[in-house]
Amino acid sequence: MAKSDSIAFIGLGAMGFGMATNLLKRGYDVTGFDAWGPTLERFRAAGGKTAATPAEAVRGKSIIISCVANSQQTQSVFFTGNSRACPELSSNATVLVASTVSSAYVQEFSRQLIAEGREDVFLVDCPISGGVQRAAEGTLSIMAAGSDAAIGKAQNILSEMSAEKSLYIVKGEIGAGSNMKMVHQVLAAIHVLAACEAMGFADHLGLDLSQTREAVLKSDAQSFMFDHRTPRIFTNFQPVASALTIMLKDIGIITSEARRCNFLAPMSSIAEQAYVTAFRQGYGRDDDSGLIRIYTGDVSTKDGNNSSELGSIEERLALVIALLKGVHVCAAGEALAFAAHLGLDLNQVLDLCLNAAGASRMLEQVGPEIVKKLTGSDVSKNSTQLDIIAKELQHAVEKASFVKAPLWLGAQASNLLQQSKGGDITKVWGQTV
Amino acid sequence: MAKSDSIAFIGLGAMGFGMATNLLKRGYDVTGFDAWGPTLERFRAAGGKTAATPAEAVRGKSIIISCVANSQQTQSVFFTGNSRACPELSSNATVLVASTVSSAYVQEFSRQLIAEGREDVFLVDCPISGGVQRAAEGTLSIMAAGSDAAIGKAQNILSEMSAEKSLYIVKGEIGAGSNMKMVHQVLAAIHVLAACEAMGFADHLGLDLSQTREAVLKSDAQSFMFDHRTPRIFTNFQPVASALTIMLKDIGIITSEARRCNFLAPMSSIAEQAYVTAFRQGYGRDDDSGLIRIYTGDVSTKDGNNSSELGSIEERLALVIALLKGVHVCAAGEALAFAAHLGLDLNQVLDLCLNAAGASRMLEQVGPEIVKKLTGSDVSKNSTQLDIIAKELQHAVEKASFVKAPLWLGAQASNLLQQSKGGDITKVWGQTV
Repeated sequence: MAKSDSIAFIGLGAMGFGMATNLLKRGYDVTGFDAWGPTLERFRAAGGKTAATPAEAVRGKSIIISCVANSQQTQSVFFTGNSRACPELSSNATVLVASTVSSAYVQEFSRQLIAEGREDVFLVDCPISGGVQRAAEGTLSIMAAGSDAAIGKAQNILSEMSAEKSLYIVKGEIGAGSNMKMVHQVLAAIHVLAACEAMGFADHLGLDLSQTREAVLKSDAQSFMFDHRTPRIFTNFQPVASALTIMLKDIGIITSEARRCNFLAPMSSIAEQAYVTAFRQGYGRDDDSGLIRIYTGDVSTKDGNNSSELGSIEERLALVIALLKGVHVCAAGEALAFAAHLGLDLNQVLDLCLNAAGASRMLEQVGPEIVKKLTGSDVSKNSTQLDIIAKELQHAVEKASFVKAPLWLGAQASNLLQQSKGGDITKVWGQTV
Repeated sequence: MAKSDSIAFIGLGAMGFGMATNLLKRGYDVTGFDAWGPTLERFRAAGGKTAATPAEAVRGKSIIISCVANSQQTQSVFFTGNSRACPELSSNATVLVASTVSSAYVQEFSRQLIAEGREDVFLVDCPISGGVQRAAEGTLSIMAAGSDAAIGKAQNILSEMSAEKSLYIVKGEIGAGSNMKMVHQVLAAIHVLAACEAMGFADHLGLDLSQTREAVLKSDAQSFMFDHRTPRIFTNFQPVASALTIMLKDIGIITSEARRCNFLAPMSSIAEQAYVTAFRQGYGRDDDSGLIRIYTGDVSTKDGNNSSELGSIEERLALVIALLKGVHVCAAGEALAFAAHLGLDLNQVLDLCLNAAGASRMLEQVGPEIVKKLTGSDVSKNSTQLDIIAKELQHAVEKASFVKAPLWLGAQASNLLQQSKGGDITKVWGQTV
């Protein structure tokens, strides 16, 4: 049942390997390439073909999917050295860039194709989200942008890799897909760090971390990332589901693109410092749940304060929940305001984020309201809900100061919520004074 | 040559011991008390008398100077237990609270005196600054507030402890002195952290740290704290000139008072997280120059990148200088805006800070302009100098992201300077949206 498209798949890492073997299972002829030899053996064992160079991999293929780690590797695969792919691409080949790169880079990729005389190639800017399991099942979230012709050519293969409702054709040119992914990663990166910050806070409050996890997941403080990452806090950050360096790269894209297009990203810029700090402490290759160690010290200190001044277990759990709610609201504000700044369709962004790793109950609750404010269809000034969240967060920040628990995101979110007190939170990201 | 005043000196720590022995040398009859016995022996060896309890120390004395570590200890000395000082104070005694405490606490102290029927006591709110050497020489900076009568009674002894031009009689009631000190500590706490952040950045840029220190001190990035703290980065943070926990306490006062009076303190709130993080890494008792370890890892990594992408040594030094200049400008903005919010005399604040540990060349350069903006005597909108500083800081933050150097303060300062781009930086601290 071989399908008509012949596919080159470049970059057989955790995600790429799953995606490529999914395509094999669905009957496609897939030739894989990866710089790391053992992966190629594994791919052959799974029924795939392999190539020794990018040039060899793409030769004669109608579809090329690139899922290497970053823009440097993408650049190297297509445009650098004797075994580069670009000159060997078939006439009218379709190239899918699925790696998370900046929109600036994928636009540069497009310009380079033209500079090399490859106007015939159809380029699709289509970063992915959803994790290893969904990659292997072909149920990823995909954010695809490109010309109508390119999208038309890629549509079938994109559908094979994504769930029915999680293939997003992003309006706009090459770069719009990467912008959509980047906006999603604002939420993802902040939520992962927030999960670790919250668990570190719980530890310093003398709370049981399992009980805290349960309480958070039942509350409005829930997020996909909290649910997904915190289990590995209990297993010494094993197994490594997502190395810290991956999110470190993504948050770097966010802050550099924010600088490039004059968008203020106060939550992301503080989050970046936390990821970099953890990297400098030597935690880069560990699962990103290991971020908790910048809050607790090298190991969980277990010196939580049980004194009556901190209140009952319920009251202390409420502090952790208040922290997460406040941070998640500000993450939602920053992501959606950034999306608006980039000219993305906000309803599409919201729908995507709510159905991917950027999801949180707060995004669900305040997201639609924020979208209305950003699009000017809601000009009311006050939000009682946000006022309460701001007040409760400030209380949590005060208690954290008392127990000496670092709250990098919490402190910043509290500043932002206080700044917009009684007003429109979205203005925080829009203003210059 | 004994002077007429008999003095009780409570709290013979590093600062208190120097202050008390200075008074001995100047011919005063000083009775010391400290909870730590060996210190009392040392004080006797220096010619002082000692007492076994606070009550015994204050009995019959006309002047009581309290220089314990914090408000909890102050409370304990005067108002808690059988050997508390309050009931034993002589009629019309003058009590000088020299510890760094919140204005809220020193006001509470005043109320407690009255509640205990001691309206006769003259209270002076007079925190100090200047370090151990100036304490011993009697050349401290002192910020004294109280009733005219109380200040009149304390004036002589305050003069004995301070340099001629560094005794500041602060307008306002009890609490104004502590507010003045707190505003000064905004600068002090941020500058210490900034010095460590800058040296960590230099390390990641592959710069020689001695050369960096020299370059900074010659530049507009100079600060008193950079000069004072960075030498101990070269000696494994020895000797301990000022334990991290001291500044940790002060920054906690700043952020809690900011919350109490609805002042937004985005620089201080991020700085607090850095101090708390370092405390949680186990660096609390170390000299606060040890903060550099949250930037470099446990030991200086020496993995600086010398690649051509980072430019020449001069260009890399310029990045470090740009970082410090931007952070110092925002520290100046936050300190002065906070002072204005508290109703302090801004020219007095500026004069004090420029002559104490809060000094920096940027404060000297932009301080007068900021004061004019805050007092409404300068309504011009643009500052070319600040625009250049903002731009250069943003460039430094970008390079830091590239070399993976954490810039907690730098990122926050860059956000604030971008927020006020082309406008009035002081509005950053005044606004709600």
